[in-house]
Amino acid sequence: MTRYVYRFGAGEADGRSDQKDLLGGKGANLAEMTNMGIPVPPGFTITTEVCAYYHDNDHTPPDELTDQVTSALERVGELTGAVFADPENPLLVSVRSGAPVSMPGMMDTILNLGLNDDTVQGLAAKTGDLRFAYDCYRRFVAMYGEIVMGVTAPSEHEENPFSRILEDAKVERGVDRDADLSAEDLKSLVTEYKIAILRTTDQPFPEDAMAQIWGAIGAVFGSFYNPRAQVYRRLHGIAGSIGTAVNVQAMVFGNMGDDCATGVAFTRDPSTGEPGLYGEFLRNAQGEDVVAGLRTPDPIDELAAVMPQSHAGLVAIGERLESHFRDMQDLEFTIQSGNLWLLQTRNGKRSARAMVRTAVDMVREGLIDQREAVLRVEPEKLEELMHPTLAPDGRPEVLAKGLPASPGATIGRVVFTASAAESWAKRGEQVILVRVETSPEDIHGMKAANGILTARGGMTSHAAVVARGMGKPCITACTSMKVDLTREQFAVGRTVIRKGDVVTVDGSTGELFVGAAPLVPAEPSSDFEQLMAWVDEFRRLRVRTNADTAVDARTARAFGAEGIGLCRTEHMFFAPERILAVRQMILAPDQAGRRAALDKILPMQRDDFVEIFREMNGLPVTIRLLDPPLHEFLPTTAAELAQVARELGERPEVLTALVKEFTETNPMLGHRGCRLAISYPEVYETQTRAIAEAAIAALQEGIDVQPEIMIPFVSVPAELHVLRQLVARTVDEIFAAAGVEMAYLIGTMIELPRACLVGDQIAEHADFFSFGTNDLTQTTYGFSRDDSGRFLPEYLERNLLGSDPFAVLDRRGVGGLIRIAVEQGRAVKTKLKIGICGEHGGDPDSVEFCHREGLDYVSCSPFRVPIARLSAARAALRRGTRAK
Amino acid sequence: MTRYVYRFGAGEADGRSDQKDLLGGKGANLAEMTNMGIPVPPGFTITTEVCAYYHDNDHTPPDELTDQVTSALERVGELTGAVFADPENPLLVSVRSGAPVSMPGMMDTILNLGLNDDTVQGLAAKTGDLRFAYDCYRRFVAMYGEIVMGVTAPSEHEENPFSRILEDAKVERGVDRDADLSAEDLKSLVTEYKIAILRTTDQPFPEDAMAQIWGAIGAVFGSFYNPRAQVYRRLHGIAGSIGTAVNVQAMVFGNMGDDCATGVAFTRDPSTGEPGLYGEFLRNAQGEDVVAGLRTPDPIDELAAVMPQSHAGLVAIGERLESHFRDMQDLEFTIQSGNLWLLQTRNGKRSARAMVRTAVDMVREGLIDQREAVLRVEPEKLEELMHPTLAPDGRPEVLAKGLPASPGATIGRVVFTASAAESWAKRGEQVILVRVETSPEDIHGMKAANGILTARGGMTSHAAVVARGMGKPCITACTSMKVDLTREQFAVGRTVIRKGDVVTVDGSTGELFVGAAPLVPAEPSSDFEQLMAWVDEFRRLRVRTNADTAVDARTARAFGAEGIGLCRTEHMFFAPERILAVRQMILAPDQAGRRAALDKILPMQRDDFVEIFREMNGLPVTIRLLDPPLHEFLPTTAAELAQVARELGERPEVLTALVKEFTETNPMLGHRGCRLAISYPEVYETQTRAIAEAAIAALQEGIDVQPEIMIPFVSVPAELHVLRQLVARTVDEIFAAAGVEMAYLIGTMIELPRACLVGDQIAEHADFFSFGTNDLTQTTYGFSRDDSGRFLPEYLERNLLGSDPFAVLDRRGVGGLIRIAVEQGRAVKTKLKIGICGEHGGDPDSVEFCHREGLDYVSCSPFRVPIARLSAARAALRRGTRAK
Repeated sequence: MTRYVYRFGAGEADGRSDQKDLLGGKGANLAEMTNMGIPVPPGFTITTEVCAYYHDNDHTPPDELTDQVTSALERVGELTGAVFADPENPLLVSVRSGAPVSMPGMMDTILNLGLNDDTVQGLAAKTGDLRFAYDCYRRFVAMYGEIVMGVTAPSEHEENPFSRILEDAKVERGVDRDADLSAEDLKSLVTEYKIAILRTTDQPFPEDAMAQIWGAIGAVFGSFYNPRAQVYRRLHGIAGSIGTAVNVQAMVFGNMGDDCATGVAFTRDPSTGEPGLYGEFLRNAQGEDVVAGLRTPDPIDELAAVMPQSHAGLVAIGERLESHFRDMQDLEFTIQSGNLWLLQTRNGKRSARAMVRTAVDMVREGLIDQREAVLRVEPEKLEELMHPTLAPDGRPEVLAKGLPASPGATIGRVVFTASAAESWAKRGEQVILVRVETSPEDIHGMKAANGILTARGGMTSHAAVVARGMGKPCITACTSMKVDLTREQFAVGRTVIRKGDVVTVDGSTGELFVGAAPLVPAEPSSDFEQLMAWVDEFRRLRVRTNADTAVDARTARAFGAEGIGLCRTEHMFFAPERILAVRQMILAPDQAGRRAALDKILPMQRDDFVEIFREMNGLPVTIRLLDPPLHEFLPTTAAELAQVARELGERPEVLTALVKEFTETNPMLGHRGCRLAISYPEVYETQTRAIAEAAIAALQEGIDVQPEIMIPFVSVPAELHVLRQLVARTVDEIFAAAGVEMAYLIGTMIELPRACLVGDQIAEHADFFSFGTNDLTQTTYGFSRDDSGRFLPEYLERNLLGSDPFAVLDRRGVGGLIRIAVEQGRAVKTKLKIGICGEHGGDPDSVEFCHREGLDYVSCSPFRVPIARLSAARAALRRGTRAK
Repeated sequence: MTRYVYRFGAGEADGRSDQKDLLGGKGANLAEMTNMGIPVPPGFTITTEVCAYYHDNDHTPPDELTDQVTSALERVGELTGAVFADPENPLLVSVRSGAPVSMPGMMDTILNLGLNDDTVQGLAAKTGDLRFAYDCYRRFVAMYGEIVMGVTAPSEHEENPFSRILEDAKVERGVDRDADLSAEDLKSLVTEYKIAILRTTDQPFPEDAMAQIWGAIGAVFGSFYNPRAQVYRRLHGIAGSIGTAVNVQAMVFGNMGDDCATGVAFTRDPSTGEPGLYGEFLRNAQGEDVVAGLRTPDPIDELAAVMPQSHAGLVAIGERLESHFRDMQDLEFTIQSGNLWLLQTRNGKRSARAMVRTAVDMVREGLIDQREAVLRVEPEKLEELMHPTLAPDGRPEVLAKGLPASPGATIGRVVFTASAAESWAKRGEQVILVRVETSPEDIHGMKAANGILTARGGMTSHAAVVARGMGKPCITACTSMKVDLTREQFAVGRTVIRKGDVVTVDGSTGELFVGAAPLVPAEPSSDFEQLMAWVDEFRRLRVRTNADTAVDARTARAFGAEGIGLCRTEHMFFAPERILAVRQMILAPDQAGRRAALDKILPMQRDDFVEIFREMNGLPVTIRLLDPPLHEFLPTTAAELAQVARELGERPEVLTALVKEFTETNPMLGHRGCRLAISYPEVYETQTRAIAEAAIAALQEGIDVQPEIMIPFVSVPAELHVLRQLVARTVDEIFAAAGVEMAYLIGTMIELPRACLVGDQIAEHADFFSFGTNDLTQTTYGFSRDDSGRFLPEYLERNLLGSDPFAVLDRRGVGGLIRIAVEQGRAVKTKLKIGICGEHGGDPDSVEFCHREGLDYVSCSPFRVPIARLSAARAALRRGTRAK
């Protein structure tokens, strides 16, 4: 018979911590703690195999499960001296999900299960506290109603019926706090809750305790496939096939009186990494009160004052667990009548700063080695360290202060719903999502927002945990804020902030400012420098940056960029004083006209290049010649057209007709890149001239210049053959005239499938390949980046695609083409320099791919350079290769 | 020492006919004829190696060549009893190009070389004919001036200066014919010609005979690289690296009197294939007079009357040569003073009809076997046999009659320049190119035109030869036409036809009609049926057709199609009575609205499918579900919009806004194909319903229905997974409800690079693959078919690309992807059915590729089915594989 149920309790457990795939993270660690002799309420775990079975068999569990659950429940009763469903001496349990990979807030928890109109009397008798019993009961009915029976808020702007009934009751009784409601009040609430359930769902609340437990188990399995869990998994790249386990565990109560408490603690500060127990607790409360942020909890240090013994026990347990698991732990605990119980331990989520500090500290503490330290730091998290912080001077007055829930400072317009956050962000707005508290339904909005601001919650509330995971600045428990969701505004004192108003959120201090406060770029810590020093030891891949300006180049170099992998010359064309010349060039009737306009642009481009060469002294600089279709530079609106016509001294009708001639049906596949230079060689010739002259000027300043000229959008080897000759001839003539000798490279961007497939023929004319994976993804999938918004979100939502191929490189398709190009290119030129300069160059998974395929470098945006360095090191460590 | 010069003459030759690569076709065959004892004027051939050397060495021949040419010239002099450049007894020579692959009309010929003011006296003395000597001289100066020194017509509407000077002289002397000019007149012409050369080129005509010969040799080599030769090579897929040889040969004169003649003959009729000498000759004329079509020659049979002995000799030589070369020969001959000389033999170009008949006849005659007969017929040529002919009844009165130079009837608007033909054709007009006579400069216009009509020329003039090669209807020598190029019109009697007027050209009868005459489809001959029967024995590839209508299906089946490989359902949507429902479907606000509109379309689509199933009784029919982006169905102009708004009962502004929402930046890479069905599954569901219901209806008529449902534009395997389920469920439900059991397939179109690269994953959900090579070419190259007109012609012109990848499948790039997909697909499903349905399915080279890659079938347009069948057989024969 298959064992579907693993028991734990009284110092003995069937499972172990290395059985996470079977028992989920929570279940495996509950078993491990039990075996370690740490006080854990007895219970059992239903395996993840049941989850799979349940979904494959039309939502029916295997037959054997019934007996196994019944028998395990009996055993829990024995250990706790109670009997499930017994009206006199009822055993109450919690039912929690626990997947192999932690998904905080994603899964649903039900407490106090086993209560009904009979057993509530037994609980009252047993505890001698009728009010407590009904408080447990009304909480249970609300949780069960919401999670199992699907009673939710009717709209984003409203609360769910249970919250509304509770608030109405408090108003009716004239009280402020839940605690001020009497047992009788709570009993009425239970009835009203049941009416709400029946009215909303047409189903009665189940009075039978066994029916309750099977409903709860089914709900856990169901919740694994609910949309918000799917969003979370997608966001974190977790496979949907892993399933979840279910943990059923005897209840312990943190809400039985003032010698009770419930809380959450980290063994180190999850924001800073500072060693020592860090967390918060609520006296006389149930665990959900902390996580949901309904009340503002006290810092864990205060526990030492009010319950010194429990505090000491918790510190000791924290230290044991951290040594045991060799990582910072995130604990959930409950103190019932002075007795400490651990409900969960897991590796703690942490800010990037904490992650780096913890990793470096643990190396110093001898807990882990440098290799493991590098593997412990998630590359994506580093981005937070790159976020700007508030400038020390010139900051405006603080409007409000909350908890510093996720570090970094950011500016944006205020919105009040996740949908608004998403749609505003789509049209290019920077937004701050303001909520009373966030819930998993808000994740898409949080993803879209620059920062998150909540009136309630704590350091471990949903908003805080998710924001830290995303590396976004977040303030929680900003209690002075009065949020009015209906009118879409909030007030702090007399100041009213309306939808669309600009605020600054400092997630490192918890301070909120009206308007845009001055920010300064991120300042890396010494821990960070230490970690990155190890990283550079381990990695083989070079990391360059995509930078079009001297400022970007300087930033990137500070972050460790080892050159420029992509300098887009067209961005230089858009400056107001240049665009007129560019338009003259495009609209000129003949080559002479184009040359005249180009001659105006040449000195400006030359100066740009000199500045960039200066910043990149001693490092290679890859400059891509003009790439986009020319019509991108032309005016589009009638007003713009009229203005340009005036500037060019041309009639608007003539100009309109000319502009129309440049319109293409599919410009992405049209007359662009090297195709333009085949038609108008003078464009590349002038750009090359600017590069060569800039190189000479920089050289004369004593700069070590390493120019690499890149010809884009090649699909036909002859294109590169012809243009390489043009570029080389131009450079050589200029260098010869100046009496300068300088090494330089001419290469190409590989961004079309055919270029990959004829890589050998192209390599004959190229000193280097640089994969332009944005365009390559576009043509490989036939996904126009401009238009795929019509269907790509649905593809991701419905899991037709595992991830957005524009964010994470598609290894099979696009990667397959890259592999072909690398093989063919190196077959012709063993030493062919090969890099990647698409957006993927800063994506950890894609960097790992580049390492595996033997590329020489990746190039990414300046702020992602450290991420790429770390990813490169991790890829090398995982593949067992070291730096060359 | 390398031998650069191969001599021939007096029954002995250095070369052989199998040395075409070295000596060119003409030179090799002159050598072969000499060795066979056939009378050939002595001469020598400068090898193709010199051509390559010349181009690689800055237009300088190898040093050794000078001596070899001088010595060979001396030998020719010895054999003819004359001395090159000798004023008393001058040897005159012709200089002709001759590449390994025949390029008629492409290369330049110079006659009478060696004449100058001194030697012309010697020629006069030798022949006793001053007028003849000066006639030779003035022809030579004009030819040399035009070909070597580059004196050409100043514009397309004008004649070259030499023609103008000649016409002026005739007017001045009051004579009609060249022959009426006196020796003195001709002498003046020579002077005026020399003045024209000096004025136009700033260079004097070279009086030195050796300078003349080197100039002529250089001109031949140069002409190999001139644009028109390049156009010809591109049109015929000939590599530019083969080079040309130069043939220098003693002159023989067809213009020394009435016992002289010059002519061209085929050993069988090149239009019909009828055995027996066929051709034409001019008495007292030089060869160029025949080819250039300046005078209308007499049929070869008349030679028997005027020079019976020469005629008999020519017949005998023709028979010997045909037996020797085992193919129909195209001969050039000159009769000088009763002596027959052969100047050239080569395998004759022929019409498709003649090609087929000759191949079949030669099998009957035992000259070749069936295998060779199939290899003898060029697939591209078969298209002419598919051309319609004039209906026997209801034909309008004949406007004019000329020579039936290239068979088939066609209708078009009259244009008078090649450029106009090209530009009108580009915008979708059917055009007839009218010229006095055509020249190589007109090739691009001839390519663009439906048919060609010339006032002068003959069956072997430039227009006739090229038109037959292209398979286009052509009438030459339509002498009653008075062409006025300046006013762009022509007159026949009182009827004036202006640019843009519609005419019908019947190239099979030589008749010209005003307006559009009724045409009937091509009727295959019994020879054709015989050939195709052999073809079907040899081929392994199945051939299907792309057909959207019952009419197309019927035509294709008559041409031997073995099923439909691509039935595009969207074409059915454009019918006026349907487009409204389609637009309602697109613009509906919700699924219910879309379903309502789809329900109107369903019965119409069902009826279409029933008709097609009927035509394809017993054969597979692949139906592609909706593919194009929806906006293609929407109105674009304001007037259309207003009309649709009225029909839909919607305000035009609302409609305009809705239509705008469907606009995409790159629609080719946008929301189309299966992506639409992921968003709107009801579209494919309805189409599938129409197919299934049509299949049942056809089955009930006793039709053997073999439906294959094809899902387009898949890039992600899950797309096909989901849609296959939808389609299968729909079909199965309908079949089950009707109690019908019928086998059907569900497959996919492979038209995106990623689909090829994940072929194994896609094959898991597919019964068949069909390569959509149009779209696959588009994304592989990143060439938008709609926009590549901006650069692709220049790429072809400049030889950056060897051929248009939309016409001939790119084997390396696109073909590489196809190979990957086939390998991966068959790795998962050994028996996976694989075909191709892009335009390439009817291109011989591409069909050969499909054969090699092991595809099961190709699918092409109905008229190209025989071409594909023949190509498939030839591919199988070339690869040594037979039908399975």
